[in-house]
Amino acid sequence: MPVQANVKVDLAGLLARKDGVALKKYLEPWLPMDLAPLIAEMHVEELAALFRLSSRELAVATFSYLSIEPQKKLLKMLTQEQAAALLNALPPDDRTAFLNELPLDVAMQMLAMLTPDERQVAQALLAYPEHSVGRMMTLDYVAVRPEWSVREALDYIREHGYDRETLNVVFAVDAEGRLIDDIRVRRFLLSALDRPVSELLDGNYATLSPTDDREKALQLFQKFDRVALPVTDDARKLIGIVTVDDMLDVAAAEATEDIQKLGGSEALDEPYTTIALSRMVKKRASWLVVLFLGEMLTATAMSFFEGEIAKAVVLALFVPLVISSGGNAGSQAATLVIRALALGEFKLRDWWRVMRREFAAGTALGVILGVIGFLRIAIWSQFSGTYGPHWPLVASTVGLSLVGIVLWGSLMGSMLPLLLKRLGLDPATSSAPFVATLVDVTGLIIYFSVAYLIMRGTLL
Amino acid sequence: MPVQANVKVDLAGLLARKDGVALKKYLEPWLPMDLAPLIAEMHVEELAALFRLSSRELAVATFSYLSIEPQKKLLKMLTQEQAAALLNALPPDDRTAFLNELPLDVAMQMLAMLTPDERQVAQALLAYPEHSVGRMMTLDYVAVRPEWSVREALDYIREHGYDRETLNVVFAVDAEGRLIDDIRVRRFLLSALDRPVSELLDGNYATLSPTDDREKALQLFQKFDRVALPVTDDARKLIGIVTVDDMLDVAAAEATEDIQKLGGSEALDEPYTTIALSRMVKKRASWLVVLFLGEMLTATAMSFFEGEIAKAVVLALFVPLVISSGGNAGSQAATLVIRALALGEFKLRDWWRVMRREFAAGTALGVILGVIGFLRIAIWSQFSGTYGPHWPLVASTVGLSLVGIVLWGSLMGSMLPLLLKRLGLDPATSSAPFVATLVDVTGLIIYFSVAYLIMRGTLL
Repeated sequence: MPVQANVKVDLAGLLARKDGVALKKYLEPWLPMDLAPLIAEMHVEELAALFRLSSRELAVATFSYLSIEPQKKLLKMLTQEQAAALLNALPPDDRTAFLNELPLDVAMQMLAMLTPDERQVAQALLAYPEHSVGRMMTLDYVAVRPEWSVREALDYIREHGYDRETLNVVFAVDAEGRLIDDIRVRRFLLSALDRPVSELLDGNYATLSPTDDREKALQLFQKFDRVALPVTDDARKLIGIVTVDDMLDVAAAEATEDIQKLGGSEALDEPYTTIALSRMVKKRASWLVVLFLGEMLTATAMSFFEGEIAKAVVLALFVPLVISSGGNAGSQAATLVIRALALGEFKLRDWWRVMRREFAAGTALGVILGVIGFLRIAIWSQFSGTYGPHWPLVASTVGLSLVGIVLWGSLMGSMLPLLLKRLGLDPATSSAPFVATLVDVTGLIIYFSVAYLIMRGTLL
Repeated sequence: MPVQANVKVDLAGLLARKDGVALKKYLEPWLPMDLAPLIAEMHVEELAALFRLSSRELAVATFSYLSIEPQKKLLKMLTQEQAAALLNALPPDDRTAFLNELPLDVAMQMLAMLTPDERQVAQALLAYPEHSVGRMMTLDYVAVRPEWSVREALDYIREHGYDRETLNVVFAVDAEGRLIDDIRVRRFLLSALDRPVSELLDGNYATLSPTDDREKALQLFQKFDRVALPVTDDARKLIGIVTVDDMLDVAAAEATEDIQKLGGSEALDEPYTTIALSRMVKKRASWLVVLFLGEMLTATAMSFFEGEIAKAVVLALFVPLVISSGGNAGSQAATLVIRALALGEFKLRDWWRVMRREFAAGTALGVILGVIGFLRIAIWSQFSGTYGPHWPLVASTVGLSLVGIVLWGSLMGSMLPLLLKRLGLDPATSSAPFVATLVDVTGLIIYFSVAYLIMRGTLL
């Protein structure tokens, strides 16, 4: 894309020369929307200079493209007046997203810069819960009336569409502003100009409520392949729209949340590279401590078997191997089930089917590891005396308990997310470390019980 | 959305009465594109009946909405002739996705049903690597010439746009079919009819190559907020487009791949609920065996300390607690770093910054767990004799080694993904179980070394 590189080089040159007139002339033939992604890659200092010299439309479009850190820096470099003009002109959904990332006191200062009208809009959007559709919606849509002709609708769009976020979908509303239908713009383009808009309606549309979770919006977009969905209030009045470009961000954010939980910490809710160290430690410590307290039960369980360990120290050697294999199998199962649940591949009531699958898979995996474990000890014993003359008993204990523990881990790992979901909690909480900790404790009991059965009268 | 429920009920009734005429009349006012998502939810038997009675456009739109399993079932229920008509009429990108899921012999039979022209298209798309842009692209776009007027372009769109996948973006090409620019349809709608198309161009566009990975497409879409991106060959000729609705699926598929790897198994590449048990066991067993072989080193490491364990059995009691805490800390760090890498939050060359952060976080977390561990043993010892008269030595050993092991786990967990990436491997391979296994082995050495230093001359 050589064209893009040139724009950045050209602009940097013009900015360095502080040639406002030449800069304006250079920018003139471009649409702000198309320049924004290129400009957004420039340094914050250049951006601030550019914002002082260029049109408000360009500043707004570019600001919307920036991520939160450069946005904050940039706003500090502008005069109070420039900042106010920018904030007032921002599309409401981008402004909500920006304000939402600020500390409360700074956000309040920003709100105070808005005109009364814009402040009302901003406060209304911010009043919706975090991660709700209301926070993402924009009020910049085009609505037409069904009794208009296609020609009238197109004229209206031409007149009012300039600053609207999307023209790919247009909405038909009645005199009270209630949503009648959504109309893809292709239908206007493909139909004769003198037909009434009402003939383009099919009465088939999906709507969101402003209090819906963003995950629901994502699911509807995936299902309906739309580029924008309408948001209506309880009286079916059209109050905003959500556009597909925000959905790619939602998909990424939701995946990040799930992945971080699966890794055994709270979701950070901020980028790893910029989150304050103290906040990150707090989010990680809470789960780490819970897991640690749970894992303490292993010390308790082990102390029950202290006598056995003293008699046959060789048993202690395989404790980490045996219990971690159960944890690994459990972590696999939990992760697969959590992702399948998130993708809606099965429902809670299918738990029995999942359990049957994991019973079969867990048994197979357990036998594979059990055989390897048995062979490892058997072969080793031919060359070394580490495991003593009773090595067949040791090998059998390790092999058999692996079958039991891997099976048990697979069952626990697969059922725990379902149980959490049943209790109304987030299944992703049953992270790999969480499942591993649970399986460690029960795994010890399985291991020493098998050892007791096999070694009674000989080693124990 | 009451309208939707009615359609399904109405259609089910009409199908039950096998009233073809009434059915056609009922469907007539609807656009196939809008009906498809509703119809796609019906039973396969109803779908087959509907496909026999309804228009080809509706059948095609509905088929594209179905997932692979109902698609396969449905095609089997149609006559050879109906199936051929359907396959020939499918949009090329949806057809590629469908053929790709079939066993090779079935896919070949389907290819044989296509007309020579369509077969050529299908074979060309299938020749691109899996997960490449070529596999996802569609040839159904509208291209206009810069020398036309806006009115001519709109007339052309009206005439040729009906069966095109998207009209939200239109492409300007030269006489040789080389891409000049992409034009959002809003610009046609907002501009005077007698302006030439060339005045709508800004020369600013992003392009994909058919051999690009789908992840690159996803990144470009996220960056440029487009609803469609053009695909060009080496000679800059426009050969297809990729649309944003496919990107939501790509985002979900990429997250699934990462999550499954993080859980310590290979990516399944198929839904958990439908993948054959043997294939799932194979994908899980390979990693489980690798981890098991690695974890065997713990038995080796433990056997080096067999003498110490025999002298102080109390040491064995805390082995699972201590090493699993290191594994948990490592799994947190690995997951956070992997996700941050996937989101492009930092680059490989920032490894030093990441390491410094993890050094600070790991120390803090280690101290927290170390203090809890120390207190646990100290308090317990007031009420029980489990840890003997030398409990302060035991408590110090556990507390101190926790600091070291949690710090070590955090460093390993954060650096391993970076090392993998540096080696050109997928960072997500350093899953929670993988990191835990590595930390287990080194954790044992840290634990017993600390024990040796503290207990030498007393317990050891």
